[in-house]
Amino acid sequence: MFLFQNSNPMVYSPSDLESKINSAINELGYDKEPISLFEPIEYILSIGGKRLRPILAYMATNLFTDSIDKATYPAIAIEIFHNFSLLHDDLMDNAKIRRGKPTVHEKWNDNTAVLSGDAMLIDAYNYIAKVPTNVLPSILEVFTKTAMQVCEGQQYDMDFEKRLNVKESEYIEMIRLKTAVLLAASLKIGAILGNANMEDAERLYDFGINIGLAFQLKDDLLDVYGDPANFGKEIGGDILSNKKTFLLIKALENSNETSRASLKEWIAAEKYDPKSKINAVKKIYDGLNLRLMTDKLIQKYYLVALNCLSEVKVSDERKKQLLYYTNDLMNREK
Amino acid sequence: MFLFQNSNPMVYSPSDLESKINSAINELGYDKEPISLFEPIEYILSIGGKRLRPILAYMATNLFTDSIDKATYPAIAIEIFHNFSLLHDDLMDNAKIRRGKPTVHEKWNDNTAVLSGDAMLIDAYNYIAKVPTNVLPSILEVFTKTAMQVCEGQQYDMDFEKRLNVKESEYIEMIRLKTAVLLAASLKIGAILGNANMEDAERLYDFGINIGLAFQLKDDLLDVYGDPANFGKEIGGDILSNKKTFLLIKALENSNETSRASLKEWIAAEKYDPKSKINAVKKIYDGLNLRLMTDKLIQKYYLVALNCLSEVKVSDERKKQLLYYTNDLMNREK
Repeated sequence: MFLFQNSNPMVYSPSDLESKINSAINELGYDKEPISLFEPIEYILSIGGKRLRPILAYMATNLFTDSIDKATYPAIAIEIFHNFSLLHDDLMDNAKIRRGKPTVHEKWNDNTAVLSGDAMLIDAYNYIAKVPTNVLPSILEVFTKTAMQVCEGQQYDMDFEKRLNVKESEYIEMIRLKTAVLLAASLKIGAILGNANMEDAERLYDFGINIGLAFQLKDDLLDVYGDPANFGKEIGGDILSNKKTFLLIKALENSNETSRASLKEWIAAEKYDPKSKINAVKKIYDGLNLRLMTDKLIQKYYLVALNCLSEVKVSDERKKQLLYYTNDLMNREK
Repeated sequence: MFLFQNSNPMVYSPSDLESKINSAINELGYDKEPISLFEPIEYILSIGGKRLRPILAYMATNLFTDSIDKATYPAIAIEIFHNFSLLHDDLMDNAKIRRGKPTVHEKWNDNTAVLSGDAMLIDAYNYIAKVPTNVLPSILEVFTKTAMQVCEGQQYDMDFEKRLNVKESEYIEMIRLKTAVLLAASLKIGAILGNANMEDAERLYDFGINIGLAFQLKDDLLDVYGDPANFGKEIGGDILSNKKTFLLIKALENSNETSRASLKEWIAAEKYDPKSKINAVKKIYDGLNLRLMTDKLIQKYYLVALNCLSEVKVSDERKKQLLYYTNDLMNREK
């Protein structure tokens, strides 16, 4: 019976894991004093999100063991950290809406966003600290290094707002820091908890980096070429806000003098018809074949990711759910 | 020779320790990319301050051992955390000046203050993580619990701005959280690093709480009754900004109907002569004998602190510098 169980590993599906992390998050108990500090934390954690990072952490643990409960505390920590970074980024970007709901600084005020965000960052460490003592130093190191990189990525993103000459390599480095390292760290921390050896943990980290880059490029692409019926938000938001996406950076780099002048005019314009701006910029993107170019780059990173995963020394049976889940992420339409 | 050294412990003076922490802070190496993220961190750490918390951490270690270098990383962590909290508090309070220099959000902008502050909080954990593995879980727990309490204290302080009925007990709890726990934690972490037993570490924590409460009350008192020649900043700043200090809370609680009405008028006034407001409020404080009342409360907490320290089981020789230092803090005129 015992041997039979061993030869049929318990491999959890993404929806199992999403329920698991959501139950854990619902029980965090932010219903306490001072209410003005903790209520916004409960709010931002309750308005959803894909729980991508906790699911990846669980899946990485599950590659090596059936006992995935040990990943719950760090998965909570990572999700709290991710939401902290959204909260402060939304404040800095003056974003009004997150996941269809008012952002914290809109619903409350700027000071609340600052201080409740700080409390979330500290609380993330509170949950990191709950991992078993033998893995605490290594998990703490990965987490802290990653958290700092996310700040660096956000800083580069803000610095890029003031520049028109951002290079592709600078952009890729920015999204590596701002987005990819946290996905990678979720997988690595999950692997460490599953007692993976360091080589496998590093391969999963690299897998996460490449999935993360592909994921962000897909985001950039969907903003322009997504199906409005599926996308869930307005098409062209990045174009209207002059966000330095991969497409805009390549367009500024590759377009001829006329197109570049037109792009710069649209970027500088203070009054314009939104639809006209979206259509004009999209036409320049189309002329440069940027949809295909971006898709090819996404495929490139996806293939590197799959190659990293193939080198992780566990059975295909154990890898199955992670492969399906990643494939869904790559083919997502929203 | 070895025995001789043991019977004459190496006890460091505050100025030795201040030099030690300042050298360490000067070598932190924030001269790196992205400059816009790290330059403000170097700035706020370089404009000084008393280095009170690192000195207390070193002194607590030094109570138990001559080898105080092991306290350097956590002392750095605590000082970075303290400056992070000042940076974000100044942003929330819209303060223009800190230690005679422009605050970070004034010198740069609000977004810089948010993100560089976040990076400091993360970097504080980076230095906490460098303590020896055997004490990491306990030090991490003390640090994280304390960091959250400091946020709670700041939240209560902001909540109190909107209230005129703050009770003395609520005020004491607020300053315990906002100020005292970090002094206490500095001492406890120092003690843990010196391999103190848990009883001694807790006694030093309680010593720190009481010193911290006395320290903050002294701050409230100096704002009104400090000698302008010594104080280093304008007398009456708290009065002008309607800050809910111990004196204002007691005045609102204890004054007769006429005085309370007058106080409320001054608090609500939008246009007034600053000197007249300071003099009028001070006169109410004088009439209620609040200077003496506050001084007595400071003495009460100071005596409790000394009693806690007396129960720490190390030689008087080892305690000497900490006693001198604390006494200087209590008698400070600025």
